[in-house]
Amino acid sequence: MSNPARRTAFFISGSTGITAETLGHSLLTQFPDAKVHGVRLPFVTDRERAQDCARQIRAAAERDRVRPIVFSTLVDPQIIDALRVADALYIDLFDQFIGPLESELQMQASHIAGLSHGMASSGNYQARIEAINYAMAHDDGVSSDNGLDAADVILVGVSRSGKTPTSLYLAMQFGIKAANYPLIPEDFERNRLPGAIAPHRGKLFGLTIAPERLALIREERRPGSQYASLPNCRHETTAAQKMMRREGIPWIDSTTKSIEEISATIMQAIDLEGHAW
Amino acid sequence: MSNPARRTAFFISGSTGITAETLGHSLLTQFPDAKVHGVRLPFVTDRERAQDCARQIRAAAERDRVRPIVFSTLVDPQIIDALRVADALYIDLFDQFIGPLESELQMQASHIAGLSHGMASSGNYQARIEAINYAMAHDDGVSSDNGLDAADVILVGVSRSGKTPTSLYLAMQFGIKAANYPLIPEDFERNRLPGAIAPHRGKLFGLTIAPERLALIREERRPGSQYASLPNCRHETTAAQKMMRREGIPWIDSTTKSIEEISATIMQAIDLEGHAW
Repeated sequence: MSNPARRTAFFISGSTGITAETLGHSLLTQFPDAKVHGVRLPFVTDRERAQDCARQIRAAAERDRVRPIVFSTLVDPQIIDALRVADALYIDLFDQFIGPLESELQMQASHIAGLSHGMASSGNYQARIEAINYAMAHDDGVSSDNGLDAADVILVGVSRSGKTPTSLYLAMQFGIKAANYPLIPEDFERNRLPGAIAPHRGKLFGLTIAPERLALIREERRPGSQYASLPNCRHETTAAQKMMRREGIPWIDSTTKSIEEISATIMQAIDLEGHAW
Repeated sequence: MSNPARRTAFFISGSTGITAETLGHSLLTQFPDAKVHGVRLPFVTDRERAQDCARQIRAAAERDRVRPIVFSTLVDPQIIDALRVADALYIDLFDQFIGPLESELQMQASHIAGLSHGMASSGNYQARIEAINYAMAHDDGVSSDNGLDAADVILVGVSRSGKTPTSLYLAMQFGIKAANYPLIPEDFERNRLPGAIAPHRGKLFGLTIAPERLALIREERRPGSQYASLPNCRHETTAAQKMMRREGIPWIDSTTKSIEEISATIMQAIDLEGHAW
């Protein structure tokens, strides 16, 4: 259809709604031409709140003149019944998959909401918080030598190549202690890895970036500077890649990659899969 | 079963595997007694890689003496066929839900992998990166007055009440510019909000924490200090809650909440739902 109606998608959950939104987002990105507006409805923990959700679904249907899509991770049958009085396409994670898993595992599902993104859900919650604190304390070369001993990975690369957001993502999503350390013009002149990271070669992972993109990013920070100029960006990225190649440091180009894609690549490249839960 | 076998769960994707893992993790937390070991297999983009995955599934089945569970977000039928030669319980997000969505939207799914967590997927990728940089630059009271003008939310609370990881999560997950600002003993003595945040009252959100828990967290940082002592933690949290109540700042207790739960609560409490995609 050339001019599809704008539709509302609800992400409904007994807890944070993160799983419902991830599920819905992944599915809807398969329909790039669909005009969909997302609404989160987390913490739906009783019938009254479910009835309120049903009212919102009906209101959206009336406004959009097309029925909404509901991505749900609700687990309590009574709450689900109270919701389903509203007409919508229900895409229900547990409804579809809990049955096959119960048969396979020969166990009953708990039907308790909020286990996945709560504190109690995973023994690794504390590890994630510690990793976030670690990444903050070891950002951009700030750290003692001892601090880097504790790193699972040390990201290296020129200024603004994507090290900081990637370090934080690795920490937050996977509980990985990711330090990051800049490669600066002085390192290229000396033609040596910075002394603080040289003893940790096995943990180094490099990020590089196209000089044109780097110049744009740096220009926002320091307009008109030598630092942001294309020739300088070209010089720094070329020198950094040469150094990484010579030192045998694995690296990837972050230019067209999201922090999620960079992180998943790093997890594969250096053996961090022990951090699977 | 009292002594269930340890099983392997695979998270298989044509891209990062984040959706597959989120889906699998949410479903498996419904079976707290199941002994499951998770393995990520991202970037399965051709038949060869799918055949390698099938080998890994078979090897796990032999080792575990029970067939694995495969959580998949694969979208390419040829790759799916190459994988499915291995015996497993397949929990396949797209297989189940793309059909109903195609009917409802009257559109064909693109069947292109990696749209959800790539850079191109969302216009808000750049907003997320900017928000991460913003949170880093406005952590723990570091900011100019002008900087706080740009904040979507400013988290306040005593030292170690959970402000920093929550700010970073809000930025990374939702693209929200979250600054954070500590409430310190001097503020309680003056009995006034810090001057830098007073003009931004409408954006303030407070975190508090049980003094016993706070003392434990601070004790790890500065063992034996006055700062970490239980009487001092009790004094600070009581004074902070009194100040937040008096100033009409909404707040929640972070003691037993994950950063995901705190963030979802903040999103609801102050109107940040415009940040839905």
